[in-house]
Amino acid sequence: MTAIVSEVEAANAKYAAQFTKGHLPLPPGRLPEEDADAIDFNSKFLVLACMDARLDPARVLGLEEGDAHVVRNAGGRASDAVRSVVISQQLLGTREIIIIHHTDCGMLTFSDATIREKIRAELNQDADSIAFLPFGDVGKSVLDDIALLKANPLVLDVPITGYVYDVKTGKIEQVRG
Amino acid sequence: MTAIVSEVEAANAKYAAQFTKGHLPLPPGRLPEEDADAIDFNSKFLVLACMDARLDPARVLGLEEGDAHVVRNAGGRASDAVRSVVISQQLLGTREIIIIHHTDCGMLTFSDATIREKIRAELNQDADSIAFLPFGDVGKSVLDDIALLKANPLVLDVPITGYVYDVKTGKIEQVRG
Repeated sequence: MTAIVSEVEAANAKYAAQFTKGHLPLPPGRLPEEDADAIDFNSKFLVLACMDARLDPARVLGLEEGDAHVVRNAGGRASDAVRSVVISQQLLGTREIIIIHHTDCGMLTFSDATIREKIRAELNQDADSIAFLPFGDVGKSVLDDIALLKANPLVLDVPITGYVYDVKTGKIEQVRG
Repeated sequence: MTAIVSEVEAANAKYAAQFTKGHLPLPPGRLPEEDADAIDFNSKFLVLACMDARLDPARVLGLEEGDAHVVRNAGGRASDAVRSVVISQQLLGTREIIIIHHTDCGMLTFSDATIREKIRAELNQDADSIAFLPFGDVGKSVLDDIALLKANPLVLDVPITGYVYDVKTGKIEQVRG
């Protein structure tokens, strides 16, 4: 057992000991009776965000267990999330998407060429078949990903709102096209 | 502005007003001086988990902002996470992986054939090119995904531990091969 396994299992034991959410249904959406005077999440939605350790979508957006699907990958890129978005919409009824990229993102620091060369040099492997989806402008990346989802015929025509999260301030700022 | 956008922006304003994490570095890993007598995350790690609304990996595993990369997709499937895992390892130094699938998962409820037929019937679109990665056994799905990462030559040979999260109890249970 690694130190990390030991620590996350200990943390989970504390979580489970205080757990009160065992009745939540599979589809996302806050139950009105749960928290009548709080946020009304009667529309079902999906959050697409970067995997960055500093960005916790639940804390940043005030989500409780049960509220929303959360898809995360390197950069929060839409082209890597299409399978999940389609399943979320077709099988679990989400009808809105929130995209969150962020300042100081690792995706701003490399190119397909540089990561492929690193892998070739260190692992002696060819990664030319993987599009790593780095970007040079974090606002443009959000608009590109909104456009990609809007243009995909498998994705429903739902509201999509994109933000840049500032890792220095904790604030989200909407990106407008 | 949708109701959801209004609500998440209001929640974010509260988060940002109390934000104290603006100094965290880009690579994951808890700073020892931050929380000296708490969890020691001196190894850098990545969590791969399902997008399910009921599963909040940060709460379930006791993660604070800055601790770990979190990749999420429908089912928490590894084949849809390879790009992110490679970036996490090659550019940001993570050296351990925790996989979390869960009970009552939506991925247990359909097949490629049924979702493709639904999309054909409702959207008049062909989704035959997408492998939606459903599964019939949530423990086996974890072992399959560990094996997939272990077999991928672009993924480093690091500890990978897999769990099933029980949405009724809040507990994680390790899946052993």
